[in-house]
Amino acid sequence: MQKSEMVCLENPRVKAEIEALDLLEEAVVCVESWTYVPDGIEDMTQRIVMCYLYMRLGDHKDTSHFAYPLDICAKLNGDFEVMKVLSLPSSESNRMVEFSEASGTRKKFDRRKIRSTSKYHPDLQPERRNTTKPYHVVQPEKPSFKTEGNLLTWEKWRMRVGFNYREGLTIHDVSYDGRDLFYRLSLSEMFVPYGDSRSPYPRKAAFDLGNNGAGVNANNLQLGCDCLGSIKYFDAYHHTLAGDPVKFPNMVCCHEIDDGILWKHTNYRTDNAVVTRSRVLVLQIIITVGNYEYIFAFHFTQAAESNYEVRATGILSTNPIDISDSVPYGTVVAPGVMAPYHQHLFSLRIDPAIDGQKNPLLIEESHPMPFGDPNVHNPCGVGYVTTKEIVAKETPLDLDVTKARIFKIINENVLNPVTGTPVGYKLVPHYFQMLLAHPDSFHPKRSEFGAHAIWVTKYVDREWYAAGEHTMQSLGDVGIASAIKGRNESVRDEDIVLWHTFGTTHNPRVGDWPVMPAEKMMVTLKPVNFFSKNPAMDVAISKQEVNKSVSVRGENCCEK
Amino acid sequence: MQKSEMVCLENPRVKAEIEALDLLEEAVVCVESWTYVPDGIEDMTQRIVMCYLYMRLGDHKDTSHFAYPLDICAKLNGDFEVMKVLSLPSSESNRMVEFSEASGTRKKFDRRKIRSTSKYHPDLQPERRNTTKPYHVVQPEKPSFKTEGNLLTWEKWRMRVGFNYREGLTIHDVSYDGRDLFYRLSLSEMFVPYGDSRSPYPRKAAFDLGNNGAGVNANNLQLGCDCLGSIKYFDAYHHTLAGDPVKFPNMVCCHEIDDGILWKHTNYRTDNAVVTRSRVLVLQIIITVGNYEYIFAFHFTQAAESNYEVRATGILSTNPIDISDSVPYGTVVAPGVMAPYHQHLFSLRIDPAIDGQKNPLLIEESHPMPFGDPNVHNPCGVGYVTTKEIVAKETPLDLDVTKARIFKIINENVLNPVTGTPVGYKLVPHYFQMLLAHPDSFHPKRSEFGAHAIWVTKYVDREWYAAGEHTMQSLGDVGIASAIKGRNESVRDEDIVLWHTFGTTHNPRVGDWPVMPAEKMMVTLKPVNFFSKNPAMDVAISKQEVNKSVSVRGENCCEK
Repeated sequence: MQKSEMVCLENPRVKAEIEALDLLEEAVVCVESWTYVPDGIEDMTQRIVMCYLYMRLGDHKDTSHFAYPLDICAKLNGDFEVMKVLSLPSSESNRMVEFSEASGTRKKFDRRKIRSTSKYHPDLQPERRNTTKPYHVVQPEKPSFKTEGNLLTWEKWRMRVGFNYREGLTIHDVSYDGRDLFYRLSLSEMFVPYGDSRSPYPRKAAFDLGNNGAGVNANNLQLGCDCLGSIKYFDAYHHTLAGDPVKFPNMVCCHEIDDGILWKHTNYRTDNAVVTRSRVLVLQIIITVGNYEYIFAFHFTQAAESNYEVRATGILSTNPIDISDSVPYGTVVAPGVMAPYHQHLFSLRIDPAIDGQKNPLLIEESHPMPFGDPNVHNPCGVGYVTTKEIVAKETPLDLDVTKARIFKIINENVLNPVTGTPVGYKLVPHYFQMLLAHPDSFHPKRSEFGAHAIWVTKYVDREWYAAGEHTMQSLGDVGIASAIKGRNESVRDEDIVLWHTFGTTHNPRVGDWPVMPAEKMMVTLKPVNFFSKNPAMDVAISKQEVNKSVSVRGENCCEK
Repeated sequence: MQKSEMVCLENPRVKAEIEALDLLEEAVVCVESWTYVPDGIEDMTQRIVMCYLYMRLGDHKDTSHFAYPLDICAKLNGDFEVMKVLSLPSSESNRMVEFSEASGTRKKFDRRKIRSTSKYHPDLQPERRNTTKPYHVVQPEKPSFKTEGNLLTWEKWRMRVGFNYREGLTIHDVSYDGRDLFYRLSLSEMFVPYGDSRSPYPRKAAFDLGNNGAGVNANNLQLGCDCLGSIKYFDAYHHTLAGDPVKFPNMVCCHEIDDGILWKHTNYRTDNAVVTRSRVLVLQIIITVGNYEYIFAFHFTQAAESNYEVRATGILSTNPIDISDSVPYGTVVAPGVMAPYHQHLFSLRIDPAIDGQKNPLLIEESHPMPFGDPNVHNPCGVGYVTTKEIVAKETPLDLDVTKARIFKIINENVLNPVTGTPVGYKLVPHYFQMLLAHPDSFHPKRSEFGAHAIWVTKYVDREWYAAGEHTMQSLGDVGIASAIKGRNESVRDEDIVLWHTFGTTHNPRVGDWPVMPAEKMMVTLKPVNFFSKNPAMDVAISKQEVNKSVSVRGENCCEK
């Protein structure tokens, strides 16, 4: 990124166009680089870098340059040579064109007039609320987890914490109360394509794992800021280009949270209440990929559930727009600043080992019983039953909430002693629109996982990446759909892998600017007939002597 | 409930059938009563009470009798007279029949053999985990909210906290930073129908607001147990049948929680990170309706969002089943104990006042642009746009995640100064299957709201209940669909009400027994182009000196 910025800013044509903008003296021009391969319109074999120019105003080095997109873009080849200098479309009817000798006199709106309030750094926005009172999480006997190297145990859970340059946080060898659950849990890939149809914006399409690396872009987490309470940090290790080891400190934070009530019952005849509170273990990383931040967390609960939560925050990617103009595929978030529509797609890779390695995938749906059928006893018309079907071959699958369609990973060799049916875990998905880009465009060619919410494959060693090894550098035919095609493998009673595609269609709000409040998505894995009773029955009953809450009046006084 | 229990247990036929079961000496027979009106099979005009018999074993008064459903049921009329004593079906091929003189010698499985482990009270299940270390929430400067009577202010929010016998917790006159948002937020109704088709189980169908009352069944919340940290309690008031006021103490708890990161950005050029944490206000009640508990909470965030969260916990309703038998509409959770399939439906009533009373409802969807159409500039096939349609008349509406369909409550008279478009709030729904019962059965007649996820009506004074005033006592034609029919009211630019139906199809797991781990559902209201920037930009930056986290190693040592 630094190299491309340097090359761009030294290029004579780029300099001339910057000059022509007649920017304020305090303006500092920066470059945001996006790698790409051609999109079917140009030469198919070269890797290119698109360098979008922005400026920041003022001396403070944390002024957000995303606030001032310029209409200049330079296209570099794989050797960091400037091939073209382009004028970006700043209106719906504009098209990208190469700057020519004459363009030095082009009229654009006067950016010197922009006084955007798009600052986020506290030095530049000193006025802060002082109404938020401190909130401390205190664990006087330390937290409930133990670690030994990367082995982590907590409340009957046992797992190993992994980390690598590409996937970031990975979880291995997960068991609960001595029973195997998951061999490996990881984010397989993510894809963020933009919906602004004007060239060059279709090239804004980020594979933040495969192309950029979640691990290498993970934040060094800071005590008291990123995580609250009693925090354990895991460091990670990578290597330089030369092969020397390098330590990434504080990559993963590990801590507990209280998530409200776990279970409760009050016997109305005696008025005796029994309540337990839900303590949850959190393992979290945060990555910064240019403008955006993503927070990825695995949760583990005392009821043997696991959640995967993604939060998107950071700064919207911006394109220039003429004052008072608008486009149908973006939101104007400040004068001259347009944030294009985009999607965030994630592929969660779930490699189960539910009480053993052979785990069929069962699809269960809830259907009403027929009403008025003499062969079916449903006299009041309110009956409903479940249908069950085991998936035979590797395949994509879709969600269907109208049938309450559930995907259960089961083990037919281990029967629940109470129901007599196979033990299992079900996926509670995050419902998502799926990839909007046209099937014939390059986006689905590179992000095959974006077509369906669920994929099931037979386990193949090192088959980790739903979009393949090279993501943006590929011309297609390398993702999960291509892997399955022609393989014809059975998953009927095999060691399988489940891949869940979820995400959000993000049409920016002005309220997402200059930094967006975190947007949350969550996926859950829940035991279904895995246990003979609620696995959290033995959690200690919630007691005030232990929890030490305080009763307040809310106005002036505090009373115990 | 007490009266019906007494009448049942004194009835000679009931006593004879209990005798015939030859129960253990320690068995105590109890009755769970469910009111109903006839279901189209019998007489249509009488209100009836179905009394299901259970037993508990042992002296402890908190032994769960739900663990031992008996196959005896008594039907009482509105005057609490026993009309029939019935044998409940305990196998799929059984049918409900009236006990006769001969039935005293019937053979049923020997319930004396059941040694269920279905206990939940700590006195009966003394062995508890001791691995969960204490977790305290401490607010040394007290929490950030202030109250004056039922007026509550917190972090630019202002609202009034209400409570009544039927709806439980209601929120009124909600504004953020002086701008009106919601006139009234409340749970309008809930419905829990069971899917076991055999009589009399279609009569298990609970309207827990309209028929039982969420307010009168709300728990007295206990410090340190139900709520953690610095807690403010709101009492509520109701009246006896005679008209005397009665105080319900500690009905609503009010407190803050930390919900992780609110927003973050790290400038990769300087490595300077800026992060804020999300403080959330929680207003919560818990209701106990026979076997089940429901936890209802309104959340308010510093980014001007509001969530409504429902948790279902407590004890599954159970029907008797023969040992080793099974049915297609229920789960055997213990020997002789079957938990039938059921659904939980909720209707959230949202009465908006977004910057004023007249709030059209806008439906927005995200659609791909055509690819290959010469009139549409989409050369790479990746473009997508949004379509917008304002709802004209009162109507039900459906969700459609494949189009990313969004429902926005807007104000066309107040334009966002940056985008020039109307300010608004959008509903982020909870996706649900909708009511499974046949359209010609009585369930949809009484729970019209169960047919569609969204309803929009023109505001009518005191039109609060989506299933009408009398719920179970009605023969239909009184719910929200009937209210709309023939009214033909415009909602184009009116004072509207939005009703969101959500819930869960609950096919019990053994892991839900003997008390279920809370199942969560959440609905969100988020500002869309309501503000000129992220409303949480001024939240104080997260700092360790304030938050006082502690770094731990995870094994033995604790280091600061």
